[in-house]
Amino acid sequence: MTEIPPDHPRYLSLKERHGIIDGMHQKIVAEAGLIAHGRGEAFDYLLGEKTPDYALEQEKAAVAHLLLAKNSVISINGNVAILCPDSLVQLAEETGAKLEVNLFYRTVEREQNIKQILLDAGAKEILGVELGETAATIPEITHNRRIVDPEGIFKADVVFVPLEDGDRTMALRKMGKIVLCVDLNPLSRTSVWSNVTIVNHVRRAAQEMVDIAKELKNLSREKLSEILDNYDNNSMLKDSVKYMAERLLTLSQEKLQEG
Amino acid sequence: MTEIPPDHPRYLSLKERHGIIDGMHQKIVAEAGLIAHGRGEAFDYLLGEKTPDYALEQEKAAVAHLLLAKNSVISINGNVAILCPDSLVQLAEETGAKLEVNLFYRTVEREQNIKQILLDAGAKEILGVELGETAATIPEITHNRRIVDPEGIFKADVVFVPLEDGDRTMALRKMGKIVLCVDLNPLSRTSVWSNVTIVNHVRRAAQEMVDIAKELKNLSREKLSEILDNYDNNSMLKDSVKYMAERLLTLSQEKLQEG
Repeated sequence: MTEIPPDHPRYLSLKERHGIIDGMHQKIVAEAGLIAHGRGEAFDYLLGEKTPDYALEQEKAAVAHLLLAKNSVISINGNVAILCPDSLVQLAEETGAKLEVNLFYRTVEREQNIKQILLDAGAKEILGVELGETAATIPEITHNRRIVDPEGIFKADVVFVPLEDGDRTMALRKMGKIVLCVDLNPLSRTSVWSNVTIVNHVRRAAQEMVDIAKELKNLSREKLSEILDNYDNNSMLKDSVKYMAERLLTLSQEKLQEG
Repeated sequence: MTEIPPDHPRYLSLKERHGIIDGMHQKIVAEAGLIAHGRGEAFDYLLGEKTPDYALEQEKAAVAHLLLAKNSVISINGNVAILCPDSLVQLAEETGAKLEVNLFYRTVEREQNIKQILLDAGAKEILGVELGETAATIPEITHNRRIVDPEGIFKADVVFVPLEDGDRTMALRKMGKIVLCVDLNPLSRTSVWSNVTIVNHVRRAAQEMVDIAKELKNLSREKLSEILDNYDNNSMLKDSVKYMAERLLTLSQEKLQEG
Protein backbone atom coordinates (compact mmCIF):
# COMPACT_ATOMS: atom_id res chain seq x y z
CA MET A 1 0.00 0.00 0.00
CA THR A 2 1.01 3.57 -0.58
CA GLU A 3 2.79 5.33 2.29
CA ILE A 4 0.60 8.05 3.85
CA PRO A 5 2.37 11.41 4.35
CA PRO A 6 2.10 12.45 8.07
CA ASP A 7 0.84 15.90 7.06
CA HIS A 8 -2.13 14.41 5.20
CA PRO A 9 -5.28 15.93 6.74
CA ARG A 10 -6.74 12.47 7.35
CA TYR A 11 -3.42 10.84 8.34
CA LEU A 12 -4.65 9.17 11.55
CA SER A 13 -7.77 7.80 9.91
CA LEU A 14 -5.87 6.34 6.95
CA LYS A 15 -3.11 4.91 9.15
CA GLU A 16 -5.74 3.29 11.31
CA ARG A 17 -7.41 1.76 8.27
CA HIS A 18 -4.13 0.08 7.37
CA GLY A 19 -3.68 -1.03 10.99
CA ILE A 20 -7.09 -2.70 11.00
CA ILE A 21 -6.32 -4.56 7.75
CA ASP A 22 -2.94 -5.68 9.11
CA GLY A 23 -4.75 -6.73 12.28
CA MET A 24 -6.91 -9.06 10.21
CA HIS A 25 -3.80 -10.61 8.60
CA GLN A 26 -2.33 -11.12 12.06
CA LYS A 27 -5.53 -12.84 13.28
CA ILE A 28 -6.35 -10.11 15.77
CA VAL A 29 -9.24 -8.34 14.06
CA ALA A 30 -12.18 -10.43 12.81
CA GLU A 31 -13.18 -10.04 9.17
CA ALA A 32 -16.49 -8.49 10.18
CA GLY A 33 -14.39 -6.11 12.29
CA LEU A 34 -13.27 -4.41 9.06
CA ILE A 35 -16.87 -3.66 8.12
CA ALA A 36 -17.59 -2.43 11.65
CA HIS A 37 -14.55 -0.16 11.43
CA GLY A 38 -15.94 1.29 8.21
CA ARG A 39 -19.24 2.11 9.92
CA GLY A 40 -17.25 3.90 12.60
CA GLU A 41 -15.29 5.85 9.98
CA ALA A 42 -18.50 7.16 8.44
CA PHE A 43 -19.91 8.41 11.73
CA ASP A 44 -16.53 9.85 12.75
CA TYR A 45 -16.47 11.70 9.43
CA LEU A 46 -19.68 13.37 10.60
CA LEU A 47 -17.92 14.40 13.83
CA GLY A 48 -15.06 15.88 11.79
CA GLU A 49 -12.75 13.28 13.41
CA LYS A 50 -12.65 15.40 16.57
CA THR A 51 -14.01 14.93 20.08
CA PRO A 52 -17.15 17.02 20.57
CA ASP A 53 -17.74 18.67 23.95
CA TYR A 54 -20.66 16.37 24.80
CA ALA A 55 -18.33 13.35 24.56
CA LEU A 56 -16.12 14.67 27.35
CA GLU A 57 -19.16 14.63 29.65
CA GLN A 58 -19.98 11.08 28.61
CA GLU A 59 -16.37 10.04 29.25
CA LYS A 60 -16.41 11.69 32.67
CA ALA A 61 -19.54 9.77 33.69
CA ALA A 62 -18.04 6.51 32.46
CA VAL A 63 -14.85 7.08 34.45
CA ALA A 64 -16.90 7.92 37.57
CA HIS A 65 -18.69 4.57 37.20
CA LEU A 66 -15.39 2.73 36.84
CA LEU A 67 -14.01 4.42 39.97
CA LEU A 68 -17.15 3.74 42.01
CA ALA A 69 -17.43 0.07 40.97
CA LYS A 70 -16.76 -2.82 43.32
CA ASN A 71 -15.65 -4.94 40.43
CA SER A 72 -15.17 -3.33 37.06
CA VAL A 73 -13.99 -4.92 33.84
CA ILE A 74 -12.81 -3.41 30.56
CA SER A 75 -13.73 -5.69 27.68
CA ILE A 76 -11.17 -5.97 24.87
CA ASN A 77 -11.97 -7.11 21.33
CA GLY A 78 -9.82 -7.27 18.21
CA ASN A 79 -10.58 -3.78 16.96
CA VAL A 80 -9.74 -2.01 20.22
CA ALA A 81 -6.62 -4.18 20.61
CA ILE A 82 -5.42 -2.57 17.38
CA LEU A 83 -6.79 0.94 17.93
CA CYS A 84 -5.87 1.79 21.52
CA PRO A 85 -4.34 -1.00 23.64
CA ASP A 86 -2.02 1.34 25.58
CA SER A 87 -4.76 3.72 26.66
CA LEU A 88 -7.05 0.89 27.79
CA VAL A 89 -4.29 -0.77 29.82
CA GLN A 90 -3.56 2.59 31.44
CA LEU A 91 -7.25 3.17 32.08
CA ALA A 92 -7.47 -0.21 33.83
CA GLU A 93 -4.52 0.76 35.99
CA GLU A 94 -5.87 4.21 36.89
CA THR A 95 -9.34 2.91 37.77
CA GLY A 96 -8.56 -0.54 39.21
CA ALA A 97 -10.54 -2.26 36.46
CA LYS A 98 -9.67 -5.73 35.19
CA LEU A 99 -9.02 -6.44 31.51
CA GLU A 100 -10.91 -9.25 29.79
CA VAL A 101 -10.52 -10.50 26.22
CA ASN A 102 -14.11 -10.77 25.00
CA LEU A 103 -14.64 -11.79 21.39
CA PHE A 104 -17.70 -12.06 19.22
CA TYR A 105 -15.83 -14.41 16.84
CA ARG A 106 -13.78 -16.29 19.43
CA THR A 107 -10.83 -18.46 18.45
CA VAL A 108 -7.92 -19.57 20.63
CA GLU A 109 -5.52 -17.90 18.21
CA ARG A 110 -7.25 -14.52 18.42
CA GLU A 111 -7.47 -14.78 22.23
CA GLN A 112 -3.73 -15.40 22.47
CA ASN A 113 -2.77 -12.68 20.01
CA ILE A 114 -4.86 -10.07 21.81
CA LYS A 115 -3.49 -11.18 25.17
CA GLN A 116 0.02 -10.65 23.82
CA ILE A 117 -0.81 -7.12 22.67
CA LEU A 118 -2.12 -6.27 26.14
CA LEU A 119 0.98 -7.77 27.81
CA ASP A 120 3.16 -5.71 25.48
CA ALA A 121 1.17 -2.64 26.51
CA GLY A 122 2.05 -3.33 30.16
CA ALA A 123 -0.98 -5.28 31.42
CA LYS A 124 -0.31 -7.68 34.30
CA GLU A 125 -3.43 -9.81 34.48
CA ILE A 126 -5.63 -10.66 31.51
CA LEU A 127 -8.91 -12.49 31.91
CA GLY A 128 -11.01 -14.25 29.29
CA VAL A 129 -8.27 -16.37 27.75
CA GLU A 130 -8.10 -20.20 27.64
CA LEU A 131 -11.30 -20.48 29.67
CA GLY A 132 -12.21 -24.01 28.54
CA GLU A 133 -14.52 -25.64 31.05
CA THR A 134 -14.10 -22.81 33.54
CA ALA A 135 -16.03 -20.44 31.25
CA ALA A 136 -19.17 -18.72 32.51
CA THR A 137 -21.92 -17.76 30.08
CA ILE A 138 -24.14 -14.77 29.42
CA PRO A 139 -27.76 -15.99 29.39
CA GLU A 140 -29.83 -15.76 26.15
CA ILE A 141 -26.81 -15.52 23.90
CA THR A 142 -25.83 -18.31 21.54
CA HIS A 143 -22.57 -20.11 20.77
CA ASN A 144 -19.12 -18.74 21.51
CA ARG A 145 -20.56 -15.27 21.73
CA ARG A 146 -21.84 -15.99 25.25
CA ILE A 147 -18.53 -17.01 26.83
CA VAL A 148 -17.20 -14.78 29.61
CA ASP A 149 -14.71 -15.14 32.44
CA PRO A 150 -16.29 -16.13 35.80
CA GLU A 151 -13.77 -13.86 37.53
CA GLY A 152 -14.32 -11.01 35.09
CA ILE A 153 -17.42 -9.84 33.23
CA PHE A 154 -19.59 -12.55 34.79
CA LYS A 155 -19.26 -11.20 38.33
CA ALA A 156 -18.56 -7.54 37.51
CA ASP A 157 -20.98 -4.81 38.59
CA VAL A 158 -19.64 -2.39 35.96
CA VAL A 159 -18.53 -3.44 32.47
CA PHE A 160 -16.91 -1.07 29.99
CA VAL A 161 -17.44 -2.42 26.49
CA PRO A 162 -15.67 -0.15 24.02
CA LEU A 163 -17.27 -1.46 20.81
CA GLU A 164 -19.88 -4.13 21.44
CA ASP A 165 -22.86 -5.59 19.61
CA GLY A 166 -26.45 -4.94 20.61
CA ASP A 167 -27.41 -8.46 21.69
CA ARG A 168 -24.60 -8.75 24.18
CA THR A 169 -25.10 -5.24 25.55
CA MET A 170 -28.77 -5.99 26.17
CA ALA A 171 -27.92 -9.31 27.82
CA LEU A 172 -25.39 -7.68 30.15
CA ARG A 173 -27.97 -5.08 31.16
CA LYS A 174 -30.52 -7.82 31.83
CA MET A 175 -27.94 -9.44 34.14
CA GLY A 176 -28.18 -6.23 36.19
CA LYS A 177 -24.80 -4.82 35.26
CA ILE A 178 -23.95 -1.20 34.64
CA VAL A 179 -22.78 -1.05 31.02
CA LEU A 180 -20.54 1.69 29.64
CA CYS A 181 -19.87 1.69 25.92
CA VAL A 182 -18.24 3.58 23.07
CA ASP A 183 -20.36 3.66 19.93
CA LEU A 184 -20.18 6.22 17.15
CA ASN A 185 -23.77 5.45 16.17
CA PRO A 186 -25.79 7.21 18.88
CA LEU A 187 -28.93 5.26 17.91
CA SER A 188 -27.60 1.69 17.84
CA ARG A 189 -29.06 -0.81 20.30
CA THR A 190 -25.76 -0.78 22.19
CA SER A 191 -25.98 3.02 22.51
CA VAL A 192 -29.59 3.02 23.61
CA TRP A 193 -29.24 0.15 26.11
CA SER A 194 -26.04 1.30 27.83
CA ASN A 195 -26.01 3.27 31.08
CA VAL A 196 -23.34 5.54 29.66
CA THR A 197 -22.76 5.80 25.91
CA ILE A 198 -19.67 7.58 24.65
CA VAL A 199 -20.36 8.75 21.09
CA ASN A 200 -16.77 9.26 20.02
CA HIS A 201 -13.92 7.48 18.29
CA VAL A 202 -12.63 4.80 20.68
CA ARG A 203 -9.00 5.90 20.25
CA ARG A 204 -9.75 9.46 21.33
CA ALA A 205 -12.21 8.35 24.03
CA ALA A 206 -9.76 5.93 25.67
CA GLN A 207 -6.96 8.49 25.68
CA GLU A 208 -9.18 11.19 27.16
CA MET A 209 -10.56 8.79 29.78
CA VAL A 210 -7.04 8.12 31.06
CA ASP A 211 -6.57 11.85 31.65
CA ILE A 212 -10.01 12.16 33.24
CA ALA A 213 -9.28 9.17 35.51
CA LYS A 214 -6.08 10.79 36.75
CA GLU A 215 -8.12 13.79 37.87
CA LEU A 216 -11.21 12.04 39.21
CA LYS A 217 -9.45 9.33 41.19
CA ASN A 218 -8.63 11.89 43.88
CA LEU A 219 -12.31 12.74 44.42
CA SER A 220 -14.42 11.34 47.26
CA ARG A 221 -17.11 8.76 46.50
CA GLU A 222 -19.70 11.47 47.24
CA LYS A 223 -18.25 13.77 44.59
CA LEU A 224 -18.09 10.91 42.09
CA SER A 225 -21.72 10.04 42.81
CA GLU A 226 -22.70 13.64 42.22
CA ILE A 227 -21.30 13.43 38.69
CA LEU A 228 -23.61 10.49 38.04
CA ASP A 229 -26.64 12.11 39.71
CA ASN A 230 -26.41 14.88 37.15
CA TYR A 231 -25.91 12.55 34.19
CA ASP A 232 -28.80 11.58 31.88
CA ASN A 233 -27.70 9.20 29.10
CA ASN A 234 -30.89 9.59 27.09
CA SER A 235 -30.51 13.33 26.97
CA MET A 236 -26.79 13.01 26.15
CA LEU A 237 -27.69 10.75 23.20
CA LYS A 238 -30.12 13.38 21.97
CA ASP A 239 -27.33 15.97 22.16
CA SER A 240 -25.06 13.65 20.18
CA VAL A 241 -27.62 13.12 17.42
CA LYS A 242 -28.34 16.82 17.23
CA TYR A 243 -24.63 17.55 16.97
CA MET A 244 -24.25 15.11 14.06
CA ALA A 245 -27.28 16.47 12.23
CA GLU A 246 -25.96 20.02 12.60
CA ARG A 247 -22.48 18.97 11.50
CA LEU A 248 -23.96 17.45 8.35
CA LEU A 249 -25.55 20.78 7.47
CA THR A 250 -22.35 22.70 8.31
CA LEU A 251 -20.24 20.33 6.21
CA SER A 252 -22.73 20.79 3.42
CA GLN A 253 -22.22 24.57 3.55
CA GLU A 254 -18.44 24.08 3.47
CA LYS A 255 -18.31 21.56 0.65
CA LEU A 256 -21.17 22.52 -1.65
CA GLN A 257 -21.57 25.71 -3.62
CA GLU A 258 -23.84 28.51 -2.43
CA GLY A 259 -27.26 29.12 -3.89
CA MET B 1 -21.56 -17.78 10.64
CA THR B 2 -25.10 -17.88 11.93
CA GLU B 3 -27.87 -18.24 9.33
CA ILE B 4 -29.94 -15.05 9.03
CA PRO B 5 -33.72 -15.60 9.12
CA PRO B 6 -35.30 -14.04 5.95
CA ASP B 7 -37.87 -12.19 8.08
CA HIS B 8 -35.13 -10.36 10.00
CA PRO B 9 -35.79 -6.62 9.58
CA ARG B 10 -32.22 -6.10 8.35
CA TYR B 11 -32.01 -9.33 6.34
CA LEU B 12 -30.68 -7.79 3.12
CA SER B 13 -28.05 -5.74 4.89
CA LEU B 14 -26.76 -8.71 6.93
CA LYS B 15 -26.81 -11.06 3.94
CA GLU B 16 -24.85 -8.50 1.97
CA ARG B 17 -22.28 -8.20 4.75
CA HIS B 18 -21.66 -11.95 4.51
CA GLY B 19 -21.48 -11.70 0.71
CA ILE B 20 -18.80 -9.02 0.91
CA ILE B 21 -16.72 -11.13 3.33
CA ASP B 22 -17.10 -14.20 1.09
CA GLY B 23 -16.13 -11.97 -1.83
CA MET B 24 -12.86 -11.19 -0.08
CA HIS B 25 -12.16 -14.91 0.42
CA GLN B 26 -12.86 -15.50 -3.27
CA LYS B 27 -10.44 -12.71 -4.28
CA ILE B 28 -13.15 -10.51 -5.74
CA VAL B 29 -13.47 -7.80 -3.08
CA ALA B 30 -10.31 -6.03 -1.90
CA GLU B 31 -9.64 -5.97 1.85
CA ALA B 32 -10.14 -2.22 1.93
CA GLY B 33 -13.46 -2.92 0.19
CA LEU B 34 -14.78 -4.33 3.48
CA ILE B 35 -14.07 -1.05 5.26
CA ALA B 36 -15.65 0.90 2.39
CA HIS B 37 -18.71 -1.31 2.62
CA GLY B 38 -18.97 -0.50 6.32
CA ARG B 39 -18.93 3.23 5.56
CA GLY B 40 -21.77 2.62 3.15
CA GLU B 41 -23.72 0.65 5.76
CA ALA B 42 -23.54 3.58 8.18
CA PHE B 43 -24.85 6.11 5.67
CA ASP B 44 -27.52 3.69 4.45
CA TYR B 45 -28.61 3.26 8.07
CA LEU B 46 -29.27 7.01 8.03
CA LEU B 47 -31.44 6.54 4.92
CA GLY B 48 -33.39 3.77 6.69
CA GLU B 49 -32.07 1.36 4.03
CA LYS B 50 -34.66 2.69 1.58
CA THR B 51 -34.44 4.77 -1.60
CA PRO B 52 -35.39 8.39 -0.89
CA ASP B 53 -37.37 10.29 -3.53
CA TYR B 54 -34.44 12.57 -4.39
CA ALA B 55 -32.38 9.49 -5.42
CA LEU B 56 -34.89 8.59 -8.13
CA GLU B 57 -34.28 12.00 -9.72
CA GLN B 58 -30.51 11.47 -9.53
CA GLU B 59 -30.90 8.02 -11.11
CA LYS B 60 -33.08 9.45 -13.88
CA ALA B 61 -30.45 12.07 -14.76
CA ALA B 62 -27.70 9.42 -14.77
CA VAL B 63 -29.70 7.19 -17.10
CA ALA B 64 -30.39 10.15 -19.43
CA HIS B 65 -26.63 10.77 -19.62
CA LEU B 66 -25.97 7.10 -20.44
CA LEU B 67 -28.61 7.15 -23.20
CA LEU B 68 -27.30 10.41 -24.71
CA ALA B 69 -23.64 9.35 -24.63
CA LYS B 70 -21.66 8.56 -27.75
CA ASN B 71 -19.50 6.16 -25.83
CA SER B 72 -20.51 5.25 -22.31
CA VAL B 73 -18.81 2.84 -19.92
CA ILE B 74 -19.97 1.30 -16.65
CA SER B 75 -17.00 0.73 -14.36
CA ILE B 76 -17.07 -2.46 -12.28
CA ASN B 77 -15.07 -2.99 -9.09
CA GLY B 78 -15.05 -5.86 -6.60
CA ASN B 79 -17.77 -4.50 -4.34
CA VAL B 80 -20.31 -3.90 -7.10
CA ALA B 81 -19.45 -7.28 -8.65
CA ILE B 82 -20.72 -8.81 -5.40
CA LEU B 83 -23.58 -6.41 -4.71
CA CYS B 84 -25.38 -6.03 -8.06
CA PRO B 85 -23.72 -7.68 -11.11
CA ASP B 86 -27.04 -8.64 -12.75
CA SER B 87 -28.50 -5.14 -12.62
CA LEU B 88 -25.35 -3.54 -13.98
CA VAL B 89 -25.13 -5.99 -16.88
CA GLN B 90 -28.80 -5.28 -17.65
CA LEU B 91 -28.21 -1.55 -17.39
CA ALA B 92 -25.36 -1.83 -19.90
CA GLU B 93 -27.67 -3.70 -22.26
CA GLU B 94 -30.55 -1.23 -21.93
CA THR B 95 -28.36 1.84 -22.44
CA GLY B 96 -25.74 0.53 -24.88
CA ALA B 97 -22.94 1.13 -22.36
CA LYS B 98 -19.80 -0.99 -22.27
CA LEU B 99 -18.66 -2.78 -19.11
CA GLU B 100 -15.09 -2.31 -17.86
CA VAL B 101 -13.39 -3.97 -14.91
CA ASN B 102 -11.69 -1.07 -13.13
CA LEU B 103 -9.87 -1.84 -9.88
CA PHE B 104 -8.17 0.33 -7.30
CA TYR B 105 -6.19 -2.70 -6.07
CA ARG B 106 -5.65 -4.42 -9.40
CA THR B 107 -4.47 -8.02 -9.64
CA VAL B 108 -4.84 -10.42 -12.56
CA GLU B 109 -6.73 -12.81 -10.27
CA ARG B 110 -9.30 -10.21 -9.24
CA GLU B 111 -9.72 -9.06 -12.88
CA GLN B 112 -10.46 -12.61 -13.98
CA ASN B 113 -12.81 -13.39 -11.11
CA ILE B 114 -14.85 -10.25 -11.72
CA LYS B 115 -14.93 -10.91 -15.46
CA GLN B 116 -16.35 -14.37 -14.72
CA ILE B 117 -19.11 -12.90 -12.52
CA LEU B 118 -20.10 -10.53 -15.33
CA LEU B 119 -20.10 -13.36 -17.89
CA ASP B 120 -22.29 -15.42 -15.55
CA ALA B 121 -24.63 -12.43 -15.33
CA GLY B 122 -25.00 -12.46 -19.13
CA ALA B 123 -22.42 -9.88 -20.25
CA LYS B 124 -21.02 -10.38 -23.74
CA GLU B 125 -18.03 -8.07 -23.89
CA ILE B 126 -15.92 -7.10 -20.89
CA LEU B 127 -13.19 -4.49 -21.10
CA GLY B 128 -10.37 -3.75 -18.69
CA VAL B 129 -9.04 -7.30 -18.36
CA GLU B 130 -5.55 -8.55 -19.32
CA LEU B 131 -4.60 -5.16 -20.69
CA GLY B 132 -0.84 -5.61 -20.39
CA GLU B 133 0.96 -3.26 -22.77
CA THR B 134 -2.26 -2.18 -24.45
CA ALA B 135 -3.34 -0.34 -21.26
CA ALA B 136 -4.12 3.36 -21.37
CA THR B 137 -3.59 5.52 -18.29
CA ILE B 138 -5.48 8.24 -16.45
CA PRO B 139 -3.12 11.23 -16.03
CA GLU B 140 -2.03 12.33 -12.53
CA ILE B 141 -2.84 8.99 -10.92
CA THR B 142 -0.13 6.66 -9.62
CA HIS B 143 0.56 2.95 -9.99
CA ASN B 144 -2.00 0.35 -11.01
CA ARG B 145 -4.74 2.73 -10.03
CA ARG B 146 -4.33 4.64 -13.28
CA ILE B 147 -4.80 1.74 -15.69
CA VAL B 148 -7.83 1.89 -17.98
CA ASP B 149 -8.89 0.25 -21.21
CA PRO B 150 -8.09 2.34 -24.33
CA GLU B 151 -11.36 1.11 -25.85
CA GLY B 152 -13.33 1.77 -22.69
CA ILE B 153 -12.99 4.46 -20.00
CA PHE B 154 -10.07 6.11 -21.80
CA LYS B 155 -12.10 7.14 -24.83
CA ALA B 156 -15.56 7.31 -23.21
CA ASP B 157 -17.47 10.59 -23.02
CA VAL B 158 -19.65 9.34 -20.15
CA VAL B 159 -18.38 7.07 -17.35
CA PHE B 160 -20.63 5.59 -14.70
CA VAL B 161 -18.53 4.74 -11.65
CA PRO B 162 -20.75 3.10 -9.06
CA LEU B 163 -18.39 3.34 -6.05
CA GLU B 164 -15.16 5.16 -6.86
CA ASP B 165 -12.45 7.00 -4.95
CA GLY B 166 -12.04 10.77 -5.03
CA ASP B 167 -8.67 10.94 -6.80
CA ARG B 168 -9.85 8.94 -9.77
CA THR B 169 -13.16 10.74 -10.02
CA MET B 170 -11.36 14.09 -10.11
CA ALA B 171 -8.91 12.80 -12.72
CA LEU B 172 -11.71 11.57 -14.98
CA ARG B 173 -13.43 14.95 -14.72
CA LYS B 174 -10.17 16.70 -15.60
CA MET B 175 -9.99 14.49 -18.71
CA GLY B 176 -13.26 16.17 -19.73
CA LYS B 177 -15.52 13.20 -19.15
CA ILE B 178 -19.03 13.28 -17.74
CA VAL B 179 -18.86 11.27 -14.52
CA LEU B 180 -21.88 9.61 -12.92
CA CYS B 181 -21.39 7.99 -9.53
CA VAL B 182 -23.13 6.26 -6.65
CA ASP B 183 -21.90 7.40 -3.25
CA LEU B 184 -23.78 7.21 0.03
CA ASN B 185 -21.67 10.03 1.43
CA PRO B 186 -23.12 13.12 -0.27
CA LEU B 187 -20.08 15.20 0.74
CA SER B 188 -17.23 12.94 -0.42
CA ARG B 189 -14.91 14.23 -3.13
CA THR B 190 -16.42 11.71 -5.52
CA SER B 191 -19.89 13.08 -4.78
CA VAL B 192 -18.88 16.70 -5.11
CA TRP B 193 -16.85 16.22 -8.31
CA SER B 194 -19.31 14.08 -10.25
CA ASN B 195 -21.76 15.49 -12.78
CA VAL B 196 -24.49 13.29 -11.36
CA THR B 197 -24.20 11.82 -7.87
CA ILE B 198 -26.63 9.14 -6.79
CA VAL B 199 -26.80 9.14 -2.99
CA ASN B 200 -28.28 5.69 -2.53
CA HIS B 201 -27.27 2.10 -1.93
CA VAL B 202 -25.71 0.80 -5.16
CA ARG B 203 -27.86 -2.35 -5.15
CA ARG B 204 -31.09 -0.37 -5.07
CA ALA B 205 -29.76 2.31 -7.44
CA ALA B 206 -28.67 -0.19 -10.12
CA GLN B 207 -31.97 -2.03 -9.97
CA GLU B 208 -33.99 1.17 -10.23
CA MET B 209 -31.82 2.46 -13.08
CA VAL B 210 -32.66 -0.63 -15.15
CA ASP B 211 -36.36 0.15 -14.79
CA ILE B 212 -35.79 3.83 -15.55
CA ALA B 213 -33.71 2.93 -18.62
CA LYS B 214 -36.54 0.77 -19.98
CA GLU B 215 -38.83 3.81 -19.85
CA LEU B 216 -36.42 6.51 -20.97
CA LYS B 217 -34.90 4.67 -23.92
CA ASN B 218 -38.06 5.36 -25.93
CA LEU B 219 -37.69 9.14 -25.48
CA SER B 220 -36.25 11.44 -28.13
CA ARG B 221 -32.80 12.98 -27.59
CA GLU B 222 -34.58 16.32 -27.06
CA LYS B 223 -36.67 14.93 -24.23
CA LEU B 224 -33.61 13.31 -22.66
CA SER B 225 -31.72 16.60 -22.87
CA GLU B 226 -34.60 18.36 -21.15
CA ILE B 227 -34.19 16.05 -18.14
CA LEU B 228 -30.59 17.19 -17.88
CA ASP B 229 -31.38 20.87 -18.44
CA ASN B 230 -33.51 20.75 -15.32
CA TYR B 231 -30.96 18.85 -13.24
CA ASP B 232 -28.63 20.62 -10.77
CA ASN B 233 -26.27 18.20 -9.00
CA ASN B 234 -25.17 20.70 -6.37
CA SER B 235 -28.72 21.38 -5.33
CA MET B 236 -29.52 17.63 -5.37
CA LEU B 237 -26.57 17.02 -3.02
CA LYS B 238 -27.95 19.66 -0.68
CA ASP B 239 -31.30 17.89 -0.70
CA SER B 240 -29.54 14.61 0.10
CA VAL B 241 -27.67 16.08 3.07
CA LYS B 242 -30.80 17.73 4.38
CA TYR B 243 -32.69 14.46 4.09
CA MET B 244 -30.00 12.63 6.12
CA ALA B 245 -29.89 15.31 8.80
CA GLU B 246 -33.68 15.20 9.13
CA ARG B 247 -33.67 11.40 9.22
CA LEU B 248 -31.16 11.49 12.09
CA LEU B 249 -33.53 13.66 14.11
CA THR B 250 -36.55 11.49 13.22
CA LEU B 251 -34.65 8.31 14.16
CA SER B 252 -33.71 9.98 17.40
CA GLN B 253 -37.38 10.62 18.19
CA GLU B 254 -38.20 6.98 17.41
CA LYS B 255 -35.38 5.40 19.37
CA LEU B 256 -34.83 7.67 22.34
CA GLN B 257 -37.27 8.43 25.12
CA GLU B 258 -39.31 11.62 25.19
CA GLY B 259 -38.45 14.55 27.43
